[in-house]
Amino acid sequence: MRYELYYWPGMPGRGEFVRLALEDAGADYVDIGNLSEKQGGAGAVSEFLHGADLARPHFAPPVLKAEDVVVSHVANILAFLAPRLNLVPEDEQSRLWANGLQLTLTDFVAEIHDTHHPLGPSLHYEEQQEEAAKRARLFVQERLPKFLYYFERVLATNAGNEPYLVGNAHSYVDLSLFQVVTGLRYAFPQAMGRLEPEVPEVVALVDRVSQRGNVSQYLTSNRRLDFNESGLFRHYPELDD
Amino acid sequence: MRYELYYWPGMPGRGEFVRLALEDAGADYVDIGNLSEKQGGAGAVSEFLHGADLARPHFAPPVLKAEDVVVSHVANILAFLAPRLNLVPEDEQSRLWANGLQLTLTDFVAEIHDTHHPLGPSLHYEEQQEEAAKRARLFVQERLPKFLYYFERVLATNAGNEPYLVGNAHSYVDLSLFQVVTGLRYAFPQAMGRLEPEVPEVVALVDRVSQRGNVSQYLTSNRRLDFNESGLFRHYPELDD
Repeated sequence: MRYELYYWPGMPGRGEFVRLALEDAGADYVDIGNLSEKQGGAGAVSEFLHGADLARPHFAPPVLKAEDVVVSHVANILAFLAPRLNLVPEDEQSRLWANGLQLTLTDFVAEIHDTHHPLGPSLHYEEQQEEAAKRARLFVQERLPKFLYYFERVLATNAGNEPYLVGNAHSYVDLSLFQVVTGLRYAFPQAMGRLEPEVPEVVALVDRVSQRGNVSQYLTSNRRLDFNESGLFRHYPELDD
Repeated sequence: MRYELYYWPGMPGRGEFVRLALEDAGADYVDIGNLSEKQGGAGAVSEFLHGADLARPHFAPPVLKAEDVVVSHVANILAFLAPRLNLVPEDEQSRLWANGLQLTLTDFVAEIHDTHHPLGPSLHYEEQQEEAAKRARLFVQERLPKFLYYFERVLATNAGNEPYLVGNAHSYVDLSLFQVVTGLRYAFPQAMGRLEPEVPEVVALVDRVSQRGNVSQYLTSNRRLDFNESGLFRHYPELDD
């Protein structure tokens, strides 16, 4: 079966959390937004989400189509996919715990986004640069360490031979934390350089994930999109102090 | 079986989405944060979330305990509770759709919160009042109608005799939309007064939910906490222009 991912083209963004799960599991999927305009592209994504005849319109991408099933929102998509891709344990408590961690990552990602958009998505960064400098300073000083220390504690409490967030096996939440830390290294290299020595379990998780066969192949493929200043994780040196 | 809700005392906040589902279903639950300090209170909530000996610490409340099962994050808690409380259809596609809508409400709520905290939760409102005025203006002009029109479209597309977001029956997502609109009426009475005539299905849903037996009893009970300026939905007249 072939999954269809609907997400805006040209940036990793929130779609990347879904791509990583599909790639890690070696699943068959099409990234509709990054096809040519003839085969897909932004127009096809928009039509699939908001088209006039839809019985169930979506507010925003990513949206995943799996034959007749359509799912929106990263955490919802991953909770749906993970059992099918063998990326979460089978018992209910583990799945609830995994989804709770993923939703904490969702909140973390929203705060990362808001460092460059503190007044919201209606204005460009250049129109809210002064407020962004203020929010980014508070983020780097308080929120970034708070979130990273939290995940460090979860990993340390759950310590075995390998760093896993859920139980004693690799899961989709590990892939998502990998993506968040990778994005933070791009966006806030100075702040992360200072903080990483304080979160060794988080760093070990990122190393472990990057060395997984399918992930490491994916990261050097042309399917892996570069971080850039249209996306979620943006490198503005003036915000990384 | 008796559910335990862990949430900060003295405000409806994000805990209210969970309370509404439990109250609507007539479930047996204890609101630990709002017990006396002897029986519960903020200290008990904090200990349950972050206590030193926890195998699985939580980042933030609300957290729900159902015998041996512990669940954090509103959308996760509601997806767990709803099948047990008969507040969501049984089929997978309906549950995925319900969870997707709930996560859109989660994003909406985060934007509502950020109207009074555009620089993040590290500073008080009074320390970011100027930025709040800017963000609130954009919110009222662009984001508030965008979200409300979205839910209006979902309801209109799904129109039957009664306004339901999911299928042809009442669900937990209806309760959450009721709570968001009620909070918005408190926080932004002027803006909502202008917008409500444009979203008749949303208004009809709020009316319908408020008239449900258990909900209407709950709303006039002393368990229903008043909105106030420590919470999510805050009425600052200067932000409601």
